[in-house]
Amino acid sequence: MKVVALAGGVGGAKLAHGLSLVLSPQDLTVVVNTGDDFQHLGLHISPDLDTVMYTLAGLAHPETGWGLAGESWNFLEALERLGGDTWFRLGDRDLATHIERSHRLWGGATLTQVTGALCAALEVGPRILPMTDDVVQTRVQTSEGELDFQEYFVRRQCRPRVTGFRFAGMESATATGQVLEALASAELVVLCPSNPFVSLDPILSLPGIREQLTPKPVIGVSPIIGGRAIKGPAAKMLAELGLEVSSLAVAQHYRLLLRGFVMDTVDEALSPEIRGMGLRVLVTNTVMKTTADRARLAGEVLKFGISG
Amino acid sequence: MKVVALAGGVGGAKLAHGLSLVLSPQDLTVVVNTGDDFQHLGLHISPDLDTVMYTLAGLAHPETGWGLAGESWNFLEALERLGGDTWFRLGDRDLATHIERSHRLWGGATLTQVTGALCAALEVGPRILPMTDDVVQTRVQTSEGELDFQEYFVRRQCRPRVTGFRFAGMESATATGQVLEALASAELVVLCPSNPFVSLDPILSLPGIREQLTPKPVIGVSPIIGGRAIKGPAAKMLAELGLEVSSLAVAQHYRLLLRGFVMDTVDEALSPEIRGMGLRVLVTNTVMKTTADRARLAGEVLKFGISG
Repeated sequence: MKVVALAGGVGGAKLAHGLSLVLSPQDLTVVVNTGDDFQHLGLHISPDLDTVMYTLAGLAHPETGWGLAGESWNFLEALERLGGDTWFRLGDRDLATHIERSHRLWGGATLTQVTGALCAALEVGPRILPMTDDVVQTRVQTSEGELDFQEYFVRRQCRPRVTGFRFAGMESATATGQVLEALASAELVVLCPSNPFVSLDPILSLPGIREQLTPKPVIGVSPIIGGRAIKGPAAKMLAELGLEVSSLAVAQHYRLLLRGFVMDTVDEALSPEIRGMGLRVLVTNTVMKTTADRARLAGEVLKFGISG
Repeated sequence: MKVVALAGGVGGAKLAHGLSLVLSPQDLTVVVNTGDDFQHLGLHISPDLDTVMYTLAGLAHPETGWGLAGESWNFLEALERLGGDTWFRLGDRDLATHIERSHRLWGGATLTQVTGALCAALEVGPRILPMTDDVVQTRVQTSEGELDFQEYFVRRQCRPRVTGFRFAGMESATATGQVLEALASAELVVLCPSNPFVSLDPILSLPGIREQLTPKPVIGVSPIIGGRAIKGPAAKMLAELGLEVSSLAVAQHYRLLLRGFVMDTVDEALSPEIRGMGLRVLVTNTVMKTTADRARLAGEVLKFGISG
């Protein structure tokens, strides 16, 4: 069964990892948000691509979810001494990814090509595709004005109150041919438990993506569990936008795209309302603490997806 | 006494360090070769500037002379895993210098400005000036064709037989205003014990430099001791060019610029011939093993320089 997973950062990477454990490599494609990509110290940084790549390679930091396990920070310490920008934390090993990626991009390779080469070197089996080879930049509109995503997310630690979002460059961006082909041949599409606003909406906003999704069975997995996000600002954003902080709000957000919705057992009471929106619902344990959790949830999502 | 030292890599950096120990910071300017500069992984690397800067900051690796003491290599290990170019060894801490320099250059700063900022951050007192803000690239002409300097020096470990040198870009390069002003107000100029062909000749070949040197007391310090170079390919180059491998050949090379020449006691027998070239000669111990050696030799060179 050909499956395409759409993913952003840590939560999405965990389910994508689970899917990679239960599917043959050639049957899984992970399409990753690049709206968080930015230039830092002149280098091209792709935080979500790295999180997904490191997680599928088994190299991700087990606690933070981003960056590499066993990382060292000697570069950053030296950079600080030189008076350089250290607000975005680049580990010594992680830096190799940013430099190699930037070097290849400067040489004329596309982000899709570079991602393929890096994944091959790290022996990642499933295909990881950036959503686009164009520049799309997520801007967070806040009570303090519009901020670059990493400025909001890392430097300001999500403190400013969110009023909306804008994807700069989206008007002239296109999904890559590889992404559109993967979706065209997909038998199931999984929206991973990533932030709806800043991880999956950039992918879903690309011209051509929704048209590919409409005829497919699309299953969404809620990143909100018991009114909270496992990680990241999804819950805070929902609240600041005046929406209910629950998996119900997530289901409503994706409503027009979904066939089915996966939510946690702690939210079971909300399931009738979601079914009332015309969606099939799977209620299960969606917290992924261990690798086994990831594989189990992935298996359940696949079974649920094909059963409809 | 205002002193300008011309220097390339490790040997030159040692004497420059010695001079920094015996002169007030405002009285010493070190003009450094940038013919070895190159682009690697898309970054701007200035090996000689770094060697001089690290040495004067007291941060240089005590054995290799290049790179930083207590360096770690996690970046390089990760880069190797990604299939990146690892023939030029970039340490984790050293990388901060290359990235910060490159980032500032891309932002429009000159190499002179960047060098000033990095030296200020590392609390280097004397002024370190790149010889030019233009691109000059030393090419080594060999039996295997013309090679980029780092290709010859690092990748091929100086193995190809040398037939000559070319400084690409020299025809349109200029010494910086800062370099020309430092030389104009210099009371003494010291040619550090650096490679004559690939460290000092690029500096001396820049338009305007020789004119500034002609009226000044210029003292050369031999990098050849007992027919060998302490470090680097100077002796091998002399031999391959069909020249005598001795401090005499070095004195002859600089002859038209020099007032005085400093050579090691092991070469004392050559001193009459050098005096016969019309040069004053100081014969002393020129091997700099310890910091005290550097300061002592620097003091002797200064005393010798002003006594003429």
